[in-house]
Amino acid sequence: MKLKTTMLLAGLGFATAMPSYAGSEIESLINMLHENGTVTDDQYQRLMAELKQNQTQAAEDKAEVEDKLAEATKPSDVEVTTNGGLKVKSRDGKFETKLGGRLQLDASTYGGEPDMGDGTDIRRARLNLQGKLYHDWGFRLQYDFVDEGSRGIKDAYLSYNGFEQMALKVGHFRDPFSLQTQTSTNDIMFMERALPAAFDAGRHIGMMASTNHKHWTLAAGLFGDTVGSGDSTGTEDEGWGASSRVTWTPVNKQSQILHLGLGLNYRETGGSNSARFRQQPETHIAGVNIVDTGTIAAVNDFLKVGAEIATVQGPFSAQAEYITTSVQRDADRDLDFDGWYAQASYFLTGESRQYKDGKFARVTPKSIVGEGGIGAWELALRFSTLDLSDADIDGGEADSVTVGMNWYPTPTLRFTANYVDVLDVDGGANDGDEPSVLQLRSQWAF
Amino acid sequence: MKLKTTMLLAGLGFATAMPSYAGSEIESLINMLHENGTVTDDQYQRLMAELKQNQTQAAEDKAEVEDKLAEATKPSDVEVTTNGGLKVKSRDGKFETKLGGRLQLDASTYGGEPDMGDGTDIRRARLNLQGKLYHDWGFRLQYDFVDEGSRGIKDAYLSYNGFEQMALKVGHFRDPFSLQTQTSTNDIMFMERALPAAFDAGRHIGMMASTNHKHWTLAAGLFGDTVGSGDSTGTEDEGWGASSRVTWTPVNKQSQILHLGLGLNYRETGGSNSARFRQQPETHIAGVNIVDTGTIAAVNDFLKVGAEIATVQGPFSAQAEYITTSVQRDADRDLDFDGWYAQASYFLTGESRQYKDGKFARVTPKSIVGEGGIGAWELALRFSTLDLSDADIDGGEADSVTVGMNWYPTPTLRFTANYVDVLDVDGGANDGDEPSVLQLRSQWAF
Amino acid sequence: MKLKTTMLLAGLGFATAMPSYAGSEIESLINMLHENGTVTDDQYQRLMAELKQNQTQAAEDKAEVEDKLAEATKPSDVEVTTNGGLKVKSRDGKFETKLGGRLQLDASTYGGEPDMGDGTDIRRARLNLQGKLYHDWGFRLQYDFVDEGSRGIKDAYLSYNGFEQMALKVGHFRDPFSLQTQTSTNDIMFMERALPAAFDAGRHIGMMASTNHKHWTLAAGLFGDTVGSGDSTGTEDEGWGASSRVTWTPVNKQSQILHLGLGLNYRETGGSNSARFRQQPETHIAGVNIVDTGTIAAVNDFLKVGAEIATVQGPFSAQAEYITTSVQRDADRDLDFDGWYAQASYFLTGESRQYKDGKFARVTPKSIVGEGGIGAWELALRFSTLDLSDADIDGGEADSVTVGMNWYPTPTLRFTANYVDVLDVDGGANDGDEPSVLQLRSQWAF
Repeated sequence: MKLKTTMLLAGLGFATAMPSYAGSEIESLINMLHENGTVTDDQYQRLMAELKQNQTQAAEDKAEVEDKLAEATKPSDVEVTTNGGLKVKSRDGKFETKLGGRLQLDASTYGGEPDMGDGTDIRRARLNLQGKLYHDWGFRLQYDFVDEGSRGIKDAYLSYNGFEQMALKVGHFRDPFSLQTQTSTNDIMFMERALPAAFDAGRHIGMMASTNHKHWTLAAGLFGDTVGSGDSTGTEDEGWGASSRVTWTPVNKQSQILHLGLGLNYRETGGSNSARFRQQPETHIAGVNIVDTGTIAAVNDFLKVGAEIATVQGPFSAQAEYITTSVQRDADRDLDFDGWYAQASYFLTGESRQYKDGKFARVTPKSIVGEGGIGAWELALRFSTLDLSDADIDGGEADSVTVGMNWYPTPTLRFTANYVDVLDVDGGANDGDEPSVLQLRSQWAF
Repeated sequence: MKLKTTMLLAGLGFATAMPSYAGSEIESLINMLHENGTVTDDQYQRLMAELKQNQTQAAEDKAEVEDKLAEATKPSDVEVTTNGGLKVKSRDGKFETKLGGRLQLDASTYGGEPDMGDGTDIRRARLNLQGKLYHDWGFRLQYDFVDEGSRGIKDAYLSYNGFEQMALKVGHFRDPFSLQTQTSTNDIMFMERALPAAFDAGRHIGMMASTNHKHWTLAAGLFGDTVGSGDSTGTEDEGWGASSRVTWTPVNKQSQILHLGLGLNYRETGGSNSARFRQQPETHIAGVNIVDTGTIAAVNDFLKVGAEIATVQGPFSAQAEYITTSVQRDADRDLDFDGWYAQASYFLTGESRQYKDGKFARVTPKSIVGEGGIGAWELALRFSTLDLSDADIDGGEADSVTVGMNWYPTPTLRFTANYVDVLDVDGGANDGDEPSVLQLRSQWAF
Repeated sequence: MKLKTTMLLAGLGFATAMPSYAGSEIESLINMLHENGTVTDDQYQRLMAELKQNQTQAAEDKAEVEDKLAEATKPSDVEVTTNGGLKVKSRDGKFETKLGGRLQLDASTYGGEPDMGDGTDIRRARLNLQGKLYHDWGFRLQYDFVDEGSRGIKDAYLSYNGFEQMALKVGHFRDPFSLQTQTSTNDIMFMERALPAAFDAGRHIGMMASTNHKHWTLAAGLFGDTVGSGDSTGTEDEGWGASSRVTWTPVNKQSQILHLGLGLNYRETGGSNSARFRQQPETHIAGVNIVDTGTIAAVNDFLKVGAEIATVQGPFSAQAEYITTSVQRDADRDLDFDGWYAQASYFLTGESRQYKDGKFARVTPKSIVGEGGIGAWELALRFSTLDLSDADIDGGEADSVTVGMNWYPTPTLRFTANYVDVLDVDGGANDGDEPSVLQLRSQWAF
């Protein structure tokens, strides 16, 4: 595009600077022959008239060709690309529209207690439409067909990016909190997020200001309740929340990252006046929770605090998070739940986990299956733990270890195998259970 | 496009009309020198042979360039544009496909009685695919993700536009009735339609003939029941209806409109044999009805009659509607409910409300935020009233006043603030209540 | 595209081969005049210098034009087409994305017993996104908005086509079984499949290998359970199945087909341990089953076997299938249900039913409505029978005859009228009933 414009401008310059008729030596020759007397005055007049006419005609022809070349080399108004999804950009950079999708197909088999049913499932099946309007505005609508009605609406917002240092967002999107939930499920290291995702801050309708820099990011927002929440009579106020996350990346080079992060997430429970935390053993098909506080009544609000650390060193990457949640009850004493995980992966094929704006992003394999390559191969290991027991609430505590392998045959496909071994459930309804899971995922996402 | 074709044709003409070799003065010079005896016969032969060869070569070169220019300036088969959504048109005008969407994000806070819960909501989140097939056929599929299953299907039809004076439509679309319901929710003056929208004729599966002229429109159709209706046993017939609307626009100029309209909407209740009319206080989040007839049993059919008037005078516009509904009961006496509203708005920034084919359309701001402008700013005021009490049915009567402000930073974005003050609810379950609502909406639509 | 490249290469060749300055006769003339002594040595030097400069300038100009022509005639990276939906292909053949949809709108009226409610319905309203990634990979996501949540997900898979003789598919798609269920509902002969569709093998999450040849196809796969199945506690294993279909097409010419097919479909019932078969009278709106086994308890597994035959002879086509299902019960004796149908159609307008890869495909009318044509007109007749009674299970047996007419005004539109006459229901809850159906469909699909 740059090149094209340069050529075009050069061309226009050349068109005007160009001599009106290249054959000036003929004029010189005729003049000489006239001066020499070889050509008579009468002949000279006729020759010069003919020459002028030809010069004019040649100049006109040239201009016409130049005009048509300018028209022909003008870049089209829009640029269309496809990598699975569709992307259309206007050449002036003012508009952009992207249609994309995501499909995650799972199969699981379970061992140990509690009983969990083997099976298959479509984990996510999404379409999304996003883009840019008049440079400064952005929009996104993303829907997950595995959910029903408005519960399937994921990102649905508009944004303003016209300020130099800050972006504004209004709509439905994730509260800024926790590295593993900020990272897309397309790009997380395992099939499911680690146990402390029980403290996932979720998506709500709200507004957020954020700023992204090479070495730090900051985001803070105010949020209403989950879409479709509100009691059936419509008389109770919905809950609301506030959330903020700051990240510091003292080392941010290609293939070398050191990331530190801190998040705060506050939520008032509104008319429901209750809270519940629970978690499955890092699997989804059976849908069985191994730890579960049940509905905790008379809860006014709760506050989550999370600390993050992550690093990338060439093909090796590691990340860990600790999250603690304090639940404020109207009468009884406050409750404290917490959990943490640490995970690491290594690319056998030499790729590096990608990082951008305070979270992990898509890996691009060095060689592609379909172009003679073998894709990217990644081995991964995780330990995670979650404690949902405090005071009179016996939700249970669970520890688990996961080994995983990811194969990325192309930048938009991923196949994953995970083996999750729950080391122990301590307390709660599943006290003493030690289930294990072998699960597979096939994914396309663009 | 027009321009391009003209240039192309001009170019082809120029290619054939053009002299085969501009330098004819050389030929003249050589001839003169030969006549003068300066150039010998032998030299003359050689020069003329060389000249002919060069002329032939030049003509060939020129033709080759012309061919390539013609190829290069040929317009592409399709034209792709984006303004948020995508639009692809075939150059021959036979096919067109448009992918668009709509997002409306709301927040509301309530005062007074009855109790209504403050909160946030995604009001509409739609995708739509529409277009043209072989000139004469049209199609449209629009889905709203905030609803579940087939209830989320909005416009879903095919149309035939091959007749000169009439368009035919078959599928799922709005019955032709009432100015405020014919106007898209993207383009109505306030966040919610006025109270008489309780008599909204809705969308049904049916077929319709319509004709649109500068000074009048007429539409009439036959319709089945709401999608997904029909009793669970499948043994009862669904309801059906007929609807017609005629509009007269004696004044239809840019920024100066006078519109009059009349609508009739008849509905047979089918197996359900009942009817219900109800309305919220021009808000949606809490979902509380302030007037409500409840289910009226033993209803065979009902007929709605509506009268419309609207005007645009530069930045000022106003519209009013009156709708009355007569409910025919099997045994008891007939019931009559009615309502009306009047609303006006003024664009501080000088734009005019747009009007096309008997309804209001999208406002385009004179200046755009993101291009140094401030967008369009509109102030609006509305009074509306609805009476759902008659004979033994005490649904209640409500009057309300709304003040609103719309900001259109770009042609596809709108931010709205509305304050609704219900002056009085008279009768029904909420007799004497006077709730008020402050609500905000963020919208993108294309 | 081919043409363009050839022209481009020719052009580049021509640019380098071309003489640097066409007017070589001037040089000859000057030389002659110099030799003749008409031009002095001094004049000769000046003329030759001027000539060289002009030659250089002309060569530069020419090269610049050539460069710009090469740029202007370079084909774009992607090819965009629309026929209702959108298709974008990268020129290198590596990527392809298609956005399409389908809308089927029905109206039905019923006669005879059992009571069935007249009405209208949206039968299918689908969007689908599909394409190709890096040559060898494929993907597809198709959603039907008339269903709720994950039940609306139809085809949702990824595929690998990099082997020469075999394609692999993983995801959610139809088990390979039965000609009439393999053929898209866009392209079947009547509005609904024949009665033996009660033995429809359905879509499941699984993996399949298949190979398609001109004279035969083979597909075999392993499948999990229906999406969203699994008991509410999550403790029971889901069911699973295996399916295979082989087809032989000894005659496979344009407008002349002879097809034979055989299918096997096995299903283990999993935790539900039950089975149910039922069928409506080849209609959908009322949703009343005329034969129904009810839930058969204590079923371990069942096996379906199907035989297919079909032929196309110019505008005439016919197809027939027989399917038998053996239900294995834990304690009671096995059950055998079966059914068959035979159907034929004739295109009054001379088109032929299309066939590809072992199933029927889209008909393209010879003339198009909107381009002066009348579209394609097809008359069709069908007999079908289904027996769901065996041993202690009295589901009933039904026979029906259908006459149909299809009008295809364009390749993407179809209007259908069907009259179904159920000759007799023998046994079951509707013993002795003889309902009839008149139903209409409007369809667009691309």
